[in-house]
Amino acid sequence: DKCLANSPVDFIICHGGKILIVPLEGSHWVNMDIMVKALHSRGHSVDVVRTNKSWYIKDDSPHYKTITVPVTEAFNHDFINPILKKIIDIERGESSAMSFASLQVEMFTAMFNMHRIMCKMATIMFQDKDLMNSLKERKYDLVLTDPAWGAGIMLAHALKLPLVYNVRWITSGEGHLAIAPSPLSYIPMTGSGLSDKMSFIQRVKNLIFYVIWQAQDGFLIGPQYQAVCDEFFGPEVRYSDLLQGADLWLMRADFVFEFPRPTMPNVVYMGGFQCKPSEPLPGDLEEFVQSSGEQGVIIMSLGTFVSELPADMANEIAAAFAKLPQKVIWRYKGDRPATLGNNTLLVDWMPQNDLLGHPKIKLFVAHGGTNGIQEAIYHGVPVVGLPVFFDQYDNLLRLKERGGAKLLTLATVDKGNNFLEAIEEVLTEPSYRMNMQRLSRLHRDQPMKPLDTALFWIEFVMRHKGAAHLRTESYRLPWYSYHSVDVVLSFLATVAVITFLPLVFFRYAQAVLLFPPKIPLCCFRF
Amino acid sequence: DKCLANSPVDFIICHGGKILIVPLEGSHWVNMDIMVKALHSRGHSVDVVRTNKSWYIKDDSPHYKTITVPVTEAFNHDFINPILKKIIDIERGESSAMSFASLQVEMFTAMFNMHRIMCKMATIMFQDKDLMNSLKERKYDLVLTDPAWGAGIMLAHALKLPLVYNVRWITSGEGHLAIAPSPLSYIPMTGSGLSDKMSFIQRVKNLIFYVIWQAQDGFLIGPQYQAVCDEFFGPEVRYSDLLQGADLWLMRADFVFEFPRPTMPNVVYMGGFQCKPSEPLPGDLEEFVQSSGEQGVIIMSLGTFVSELPADMANEIAAAFAKLPQKVIWRYKGDRPATLGNNTLLVDWMPQNDLLGHPKIKLFVAHGGTNGIQEAIYHGVPVVGLPVFFDQYDNLLRLKERGGAKLLTLATVDKGNNFLEAIEEVLTEPSYRMNMQRLSRLHRDQPMKPLDTALFWIEFVMRHKGAAHLRTESYRLPWYSYHSVDVVLSFLATVAVITFLPLVFFRYAQAVLLFPPKIPLCCFRF
Repeated sequence: DKCLANSPVDFIICHGGKILIVPLEGSHWVNMDIMVKALHSRGHSVDVVRTNKSWYIKDDSPHYKTITVPVTEAFNHDFINPILKKIIDIERGESSAMSFASLQVEMFTAMFNMHRIMCKMATIMFQDKDLMNSLKERKYDLVLTDPAWGAGIMLAHALKLPLVYNVRWITSGEGHLAIAPSPLSYIPMTGSGLSDKMSFIQRVKNLIFYVIWQAQDGFLIGPQYQAVCDEFFGPEVRYSDLLQGADLWLMRADFVFEFPRPTMPNVVYMGGFQCKPSEPLPGDLEEFVQSSGEQGVIIMSLGTFVSELPADMANEIAAAFAKLPQKVIWRYKGDRPATLGNNTLLVDWMPQNDLLGHPKIKLFVAHGGTNGIQEAIYHGVPVVGLPVFFDQYDNLLRLKERGGAKLLTLATVDKGNNFLEAIEEVLTEPSYRMNMQRLSRLHRDQPMKPLDTALFWIEFVMRHKGAAHLRTESYRLPWYSYHSVDVVLSFLATVAVITFLPLVFFRYAQAVLLFPPKIPLCCFRF
Repeated sequence: DKCLANSPVDFIICHGGKILIVPLEGSHWVNMDIMVKALHSRGHSVDVVRTNKSWYIKDDSPHYKTITVPVTEAFNHDFINPILKKIIDIERGESSAMSFASLQVEMFTAMFNMHRIMCKMATIMFQDKDLMNSLKERKYDLVLTDPAWGAGIMLAHALKLPLVYNVRWITSGEGHLAIAPSPLSYIPMTGSGLSDKMSFIQRVKNLIFYVIWQAQDGFLIGPQYQAVCDEFFGPEVRYSDLLQGADLWLMRADFVFEFPRPTMPNVVYMGGFQCKPSEPLPGDLEEFVQSSGEQGVIIMSLGTFVSELPADMANEIAAAFAKLPQKVIWRYKGDRPATLGNNTLLVDWMPQNDLLGHPKIKLFVAHGGTNGIQEAIYHGVPVVGLPVFFDQYDNLLRLKERGGAKLLTLATVDKGNNFLEAIEEVLTEPSYRMNMQRLSRLHRDQPMKPLDTALFWIEFVMRHKGAAHLRTESYRLPWYSYHSVDVVLSFLATVAVITFLPLVFFRYAQAVLLFPPKIPLCCFRF
């Protein structure tokens, strides 16, 4: 029996490990919380770092204990609706180029502030000797964090603990960019709206996006974290090394969703780990769904952040729905649109996964957040996409490229019959559903379920106190060595010398022997 | 019940698939045969392509049927012992630089001929319309081949079948080089004897090895296969595209053995898939092993190919063994060395895996073939390495870097007490054994056994008729696009034009306005 033998390898399995989690807020926490519950149910004890102003992370849970950092400033999580309004105005052409610039500045500022507040939180932690000592004494087995915010990365370094990421984004874009070679010729940059097959002009655009992301990370975000490292660890500790040096990257993607690309041995794919078979709907919802008969049901949600739309846009959408023979369930918190049809049910919240797994659901009108996209793939439901911001267009593009989704822009959704036509096309053209069902089959056909894979590798890192053998340390090379620039230049220089030296010698000899005193040597010409 | 439902996905599971295997000879077949047996026991029917002059692949087996191609020429598989003799002479300094050059020529010629004979075999197959038709009619689900020889790759293209590799080498070096980005700054080239941490000079050496491999593949080997493609598929089909376009690469390595490096989504690691728990030894061998008492047993094998050594070298090795308190089992087919001690048993063949798993075995003297190294890792037995050629030094170096092996060269093995001292060091210094045991724990700690992983993915390709979603098609880009050379040059050109155009204009204006007629415009200088 393993637990009697009590070897170091089996100890974690038998007695549970101690995990320190430094999560992100918002939808990232929704994901992380699923992992917390799974780790708890495997017998591990989990502590979660939060601030006293956390939006989502509750102070108490049966699944974890909290370590609350007292901060004086928190990020305003209601920043989305004003930004959304600006985006819609710009897309509709109702705003000037000036507003576009001011929107960019506003979004950059929001991002800058988020990281500034994170760094402030880390500083408060590191200055609190009692807190840090109690964390050290707790002897955690690893730190699990989302590296889009860097506090957890620095905390793992301070506590000298193995580091595992639950990751989709880093500060310079998509997670792979920090660790796997990413040729810009076929790896579309975050937010570029490009696929893995690009024309020359698209590849130029991709390069520009890359430069923008690098500049943003190198000048705005990176230095904030480096300043914290300088203060507490000394300037020889580079934040980028800490970021790249994690033991394991649990990536919230897989290659049913993501375009194929280079990866690394310590990247583990767990895309869709939150998906699960649907459970029965609440009675009244089931009744509404069943009332759709043969025609079935359409569901629509624009995610956690976007609770309302401009009234005219909401009216157009409601009017389009009213013309359909299907029933519609629409998650919407704004004012009830005047044109709302009898077939449409407005809800504040819906059991999205259970609905998507229901056989009556024919179509999902989605904003393209990762969670919803993964659930659509898992259940094989075709999508009409209405991307708003962040990675949503990119996410939906991946479904579209595989034939499972049709995309609209916010600017055109209420022009003519765009929205209605898109829905009717996806409902009547069988390829959309067939493609989503194929993706669903591919996604489900894995040796282990994604969540089990993630748990295996988290425990692997605990059992072996890291995963150094899966991690290259090539990131420690200077860039000119990493890319062999020094070797190639030296090689070319050597070739040049070997080629020209005899020539020089010959000319010299010729000059000296044939015309000894006549011309000064320094001036002869080839 | 899956088999009643009979969906396309489950069909393969219930009724078995049809697999066409185009194997390599020698130790590569030893591996492939293990996979053939496993596929057979999973209910698949397997056909194996061989020639009438095959060295290893028997005409009949309970596990597979053969498709025998009649050839008039076969490669002489006794080429190793004369080459070995030359290598030893050269390493000992008993041969001139001239012999070193002639050895290189001989080895290149051997390799060239091997591929020439392969291409001839492919040509005979493709010309045989009856054979090709019968293969088409058999409706295989996939082709499984070792891409170090290219006949299977072309056959899969001819039959339009999904393609899976059982791979360690390709014609231009280690398998990853064809598919995964491989920065020369930390990916040591095959045969270079370098690790993943290189000095500047070592990186120069690595580049030179890369150039040699590329040249060999580009000028000697590749064109032979391309000629076959030209003849049967037309010149628009590039052999390199066929090689890179395989659905799945089952790599005979893992990152306990191999240095961490970039990989691709369609590379699956199955290093050590042939390893299994040891079984009881035959009675007399067990008796010999037990007679070693506390001291334990050393085993030595130089692999399948090297059956004998120069007499003086064999004598030195035997004399060293005779001085040890351990018992020794030595797989050796040469004449009995005069100095052989009573503690040493010479055998023609030994159950290597069962011995390595025996608790009495203290040390493995090995030549560094992949199979033996993987078995040493699996069972956690430390190694004294005597590499001869091919990848053997590279393999042993990987164990040495992890503290599990000590290396000797053939040149020095019989100088002084080198061999004896190496054995005593590995026996007495506990770190060697501890490190090998650690590697063994890491290797065995996987979500699935490597062979099961391989079988899962072979069946995955059958179920989904390929694995296109895991494969980039970036290899179809021209090299200057792949590396963004065109984009960067255009970008720089644009920057140059934007920078200089106003300057040119200004100078032009200045020239025209200030000194209208005086100087011809073409001649003004900045």
